[in-house]
Amino acid sequence: MGTILRVDLSAKSIKKEPIDPEVAKNFVGAKGFAAYYLFKEIPPKVPALSAENKVMIVAGPLTGTGAPGHARCCVAAKSPLTGGWTDGYFGGAFGPELKYAGYDAIIIEGAAEKPVYLLIEDDKVELKDAKEFWGMGTFDAMRLLKEKHFTDKEPKVLCIGPAGEKQVLIANVIAESRAGGRGGVGAVLGFKKLKAVVVTGHKEVPIADREKFEEARRNAFQKLAKSPLTGPKGALPMMGTANIIKGVNAAGAWPTRNFQTGVFEHVDEICGEAFRDTLWQGGERRKPCPGCPVMCTHLAVPETGPMPGVADEGPEYENITFLGSDVGVADRDIIATAEYLCDFYGLDAISTGATIAFLMECYEKGLISKTETDGLDLKFGNGEAEIEAIIKIGTKSGKLGELGAMGTKRASEVIGKGSEKFAIHVKGLEVPAYDPRAAFGMGVAYARSDRGGCHLRPWTFGAECLGLAPAEEPYVPFCVEGKGTWVKQMNDVVAAFDCSGMCLFMTFGIDAVEDVVPLLNAATGFNFTSADFVKVGERASNVTRAFWFKHIPDFGRKYDTLPWRFLHEPMPEGPAKGKTVPLEPLLNEYYAAAGWDADGKPTKEKLAELGLDFVIKEIY
Amino acid sequence: MGTILRVDLSAKSIKKEPIDPEVAKNFVGAKGFAAYYLFKEIPPKVPALSAENKVMIVAGPLTGTGAPGHARCCVAAKSPLTGGWTDGYFGGAFGPELKYAGYDAIIIEGAAEKPVYLLIEDDKVELKDAKEFWGMGTFDAMRLLKEKHFTDKEPKVLCIGPAGEKQVLIANVIAESRAGGRGGVGAVLGFKKLKAVVVTGHKEVPIADREKFEEARRNAFQKLAKSPLTGPKGALPMMGTANIIKGVNAAGAWPTRNFQTGVFEHVDEICGEAFRDTLWQGGERRKPCPGCPVMCTHLAVPETGPMPGVADEGPEYENITFLGSDVGVADRDIIATAEYLCDFYGLDAISTGATIAFLMECYEKGLISKTETDGLDLKFGNGEAEIEAIIKIGTKSGKLGELGAMGTKRASEVIGKGSEKFAIHVKGLEVPAYDPRAAFGMGVAYARSDRGGCHLRPWTFGAECLGLAPAEEPYVPFCVEGKGTWVKQMNDVVAAFDCSGMCLFMTFGIDAVEDVVPLLNAATGFNFTSADFVKVGERASNVTRAFWFKHIPDFGRKYDTLPWRFLHEPMPEGPAKGKTVPLEPLLNEYYAAAGWDADGKPTKEKLAELGLDFVIKEIY
Repeated sequence: MGTILRVDLSAKSIKKEPIDPEVAKNFVGAKGFAAYYLFKEIPPKVPALSAENKVMIVAGPLTGTGAPGHARCCVAAKSPLTGGWTDGYFGGAFGPELKYAGYDAIIIEGAAEKPVYLLIEDDKVELKDAKEFWGMGTFDAMRLLKEKHFTDKEPKVLCIGPAGEKQVLIANVIAESRAGGRGGVGAVLGFKKLKAVVVTGHKEVPIADREKFEEARRNAFQKLAKSPLTGPKGALPMMGTANIIKGVNAAGAWPTRNFQTGVFEHVDEICGEAFRDTLWQGGERRKPCPGCPVMCTHLAVPETGPMPGVADEGPEYENITFLGSDVGVADRDIIATAEYLCDFYGLDAISTGATIAFLMECYEKGLISKTETDGLDLKFGNGEAEIEAIIKIGTKSGKLGELGAMGTKRASEVIGKGSEKFAIHVKGLEVPAYDPRAAFGMGVAYARSDRGGCHLRPWTFGAECLGLAPAEEPYVPFCVEGKGTWVKQMNDVVAAFDCSGMCLFMTFGIDAVEDVVPLLNAATGFNFTSADFVKVGERASNVTRAFWFKHIPDFGRKYDTLPWRFLHEPMPEGPAKGKTVPLEPLLNEYYAAAGWDADGKPTKEKLAELGLDFVIKEIY
Repeated sequence: MGTILRVDLSAKSIKKEPIDPEVAKNFVGAKGFAAYYLFKEIPPKVPALSAENKVMIVAGPLTGTGAPGHARCCVAAKSPLTGGWTDGYFGGAFGPELKYAGYDAIIIEGAAEKPVYLLIEDDKVELKDAKEFWGMGTFDAMRLLKEKHFTDKEPKVLCIGPAGEKQVLIANVIAESRAGGRGGVGAVLGFKKLKAVVVTGHKEVPIADREKFEEARRNAFQKLAKSPLTGPKGALPMMGTANIIKGVNAAGAWPTRNFQTGVFEHVDEICGEAFRDTLWQGGERRKPCPGCPVMCTHLAVPETGPMPGVADEGPEYENITFLGSDVGVADRDIIATAEYLCDFYGLDAISTGATIAFLMECYEKGLISKTETDGLDLKFGNGEAEIEAIIKIGTKSGKLGELGAMGTKRASEVIGKGSEKFAIHVKGLEVPAYDPRAAFGMGVAYARSDRGGCHLRPWTFGAECLGLAPAEEPYVPFCVEGKGTWVKQMNDVVAAFDCSGMCLFMTFGIDAVEDVVPLLNAATGFNFTSADFVKVGERASNVTRAFWFKHIPDFGRKYDTLPWRFLHEPMPEGPAKGKTVPLEPLLNEYYAAAGWDADGKPTKEKLAELGLDFVIKEIY
């Protein structure tokens, strides 16, 4: 039923543990496993930056199977940015390779005295001295680690950059150029002095019923090929997630200058179409995940700016927003370079751009001066200053680097002077690229998401503003009634999907439940109904919810809030002009639908229904 | 007797040609083959940046054999910087891989309409569309090309960067992070629109007499292990070529601020010992060529500066000089970053640093202003300006980029105002890192070298100033008599060695002739005596000399000169205080020893003696 690699960096020990079939059935993989193991194993209230915290890198049962979007892998830990739960997902070749080596997950515990990396070559697993790689940017570390450990296959590498090493709280992990681990998982690995995981595998990923699997797989591929979004020449393959930029801007929801408005006047210069026609060479300069039929990822190589010639995947929608409109920058090459630098230093580009945007607003309002910016003229639209700020944050250097490395919430606490009102985060995690004043579903999703400000738990925006659902209640943007319930249901579906090891973008062409359950059942031998599958998501979501209660003594409804700006400052223009988010009724309904009490705590009944007695014991 | 891959980019044709055994015996490989084929094949007086020019990438018979330093490979062409001959050598894994694929050389001719790259997988050879890689820096292009084409082995990549693409005249080629092709070979490939050569091979490199070869190999390895320079913990493994910095500075020969003096006051901050104890982690952060027992190359990762975290091999002696002392910069991290950027953009770091140094002197003397420097305060010692200048030159952007991309000679012609007097080049190629006023042997070597200012044809400095020869005439620095003869003899030895495919640094532990001939004979089945082998060098040198006569109508002695500064401006301080280079008598003696006439033209008699009738026909 799968194998976990348990790596204790303090004891320098490596163990292989089988996964309990009951756990496998209840939690499936990826998000589910991370929730189960980390909830059980991380002692209450330990600091996130401590040897007691644990990091889990975990694939799903469909990762590496050849299912569409089978490249997804999860990384999770207690977040040093929020103090609570965080799990993130990345594509690329790392996750499948971990499976090829015979592992479903790695649990990293303890802390090394000196920098190390984990080398996995099928059954051979060892910790190696990382002295020579410490201090390196991710691209260089990946390049040199690959070169060092090439056998008959190219090894796949997950690593942290200088930001993680320096425990920058918005540091992530980079796996084969893909980013994951919002909330500072990179900092946790940096604290633990684990520079990288290098993996090469040769095994076949087990499939319980190959015939049924191939049938389900064929069906999914066919649907994906037919969808106008995911099929050849569809919006996703041609423009990636950036295909929605014009739509988001038209809905008045595109974060601009630290969410001061939802409309960016230079949208035509940095929308998906503009990137497609320039840097992405008509949409053909691609860098897809292995085996993906959609191929949404492109490669950008800026021709101007501070470092022409750097090549990185992206920029995706979120990053164009936070390295572009939200900092007021409309230069594609600057955005692509900023993306490269975020990945090079191992910085979460959403949080990095958002923190810079916050600091820009502070600077423009006179709350900080060139003393705090190390002399940079940190105005909105100053692309050169943005680039400098990223490098400073990525290396925690100078006053600006120190300040930015804290993320928005802590920086606003240091700056004070009312800056908290436009510190755009939920629970400490910077809010992603949809202004919830223009789509109330995103408001309750942000307030409730299990890792803080997240755009994917669930993503209601497509339904609310982009025509991906009927224009009727509760799917219309400003509707309140019914919305909390809908968002809760969608949350469980996404959480279930995130246990599978498939990429969420597949759901633009196939159904997240009906088309996935056959794949999952065939691969695992389970006999899930659709309802069983969604229940897995609800179960995982309740565990991650309980994680917060376990770790934060006064956790409850007051944490499920939104930035002051979204609640009290009416949107100044566009279709959402005059709107703020009416959070309380949305949240009431969500809690009720979830079976949580008025303080947002899962009831004993709900937890018992989900078979989570170990959670009841811990939080009651 | 070996195979040449002939790639016609205009015709899109690829042919495999056997090498004539007679040619193999007379020219051996690497330098010899380049000299033979390019002399014969490049029509007289064609522009270097034209489809008629050809580039040759050529290994030696010992490349890839497992002989010590067997990683060497040559790249040669008609130089767009000098208008004459250029051949350069690089180590790393590319050369051996070319041999493993079954090829001794590639001749690249014609020019592609659109960017292409050459993919070699053993017998399968094809030209591929390089659109997606065009514009990329070398590290990114290498990383992505490797990822695209790995099979059961990691492919090895030679490529050009943005500088080559833009036909920057000081652009080189980067092969597996190693640099070669001074004199603008990168620009020639850029003109031809060949972005890269990607090679994977699985064949055994032929050895005529395996038993004798192993014996000679063992002998060479043993000697290298015993030498204080090349043995474990020797100066080369611990500090690379930078081990000599203190010695060169003590001899008053270390180029400082565009050769205004030979002593740098900050030598202790950027000498080999300083790099060893910091960036090179006690000398242990290494990145050797495959199979090399000496392992002179280190890896540097700057912790400060404009882009902390970049990882590149080096900086070597030459680059510390031209990115450090010669531009007045004493910051190790800036130097390491500058090195990274030169390699990233595919710029010859010697010429780039030297050109910047020249422009700095122009700026300080008021011959150019911020108009020409795009606003940069281009003073000696301004590391930030140095970094900016490299990026501008590497992308030929701005006025400074346009000016710098021409190299020193042409820039001085544009600037005028007497700047020609301190334009430090020979025949257009920037002079490397030994001030010849402090070692006259280097003076005649520079004046006569077959590619313009070169420190390796031959390198007399070790004998003259570093105690590598008895302190007696003609080896002492300021001796004139006997020196021209000595330098000529040494030139032939080095030229012979450069036909072998071995790395010149091996000669710090083994004899360049006595220990190489047994390896060469065993590998090839030749029966060279030592004299035969040296004759091969003399032959190749006469062909490359004749190349200039073939291509430049008025070529002759007047080209064999030195920068005005070395001839007329006495060294202001240090052991060489008051000295200038007495070039004429040195050159007279050299010509006489070489069997050349008073104008430096190889006589018919000499050419006939060397069996070079085809040369006589061409230049007489």
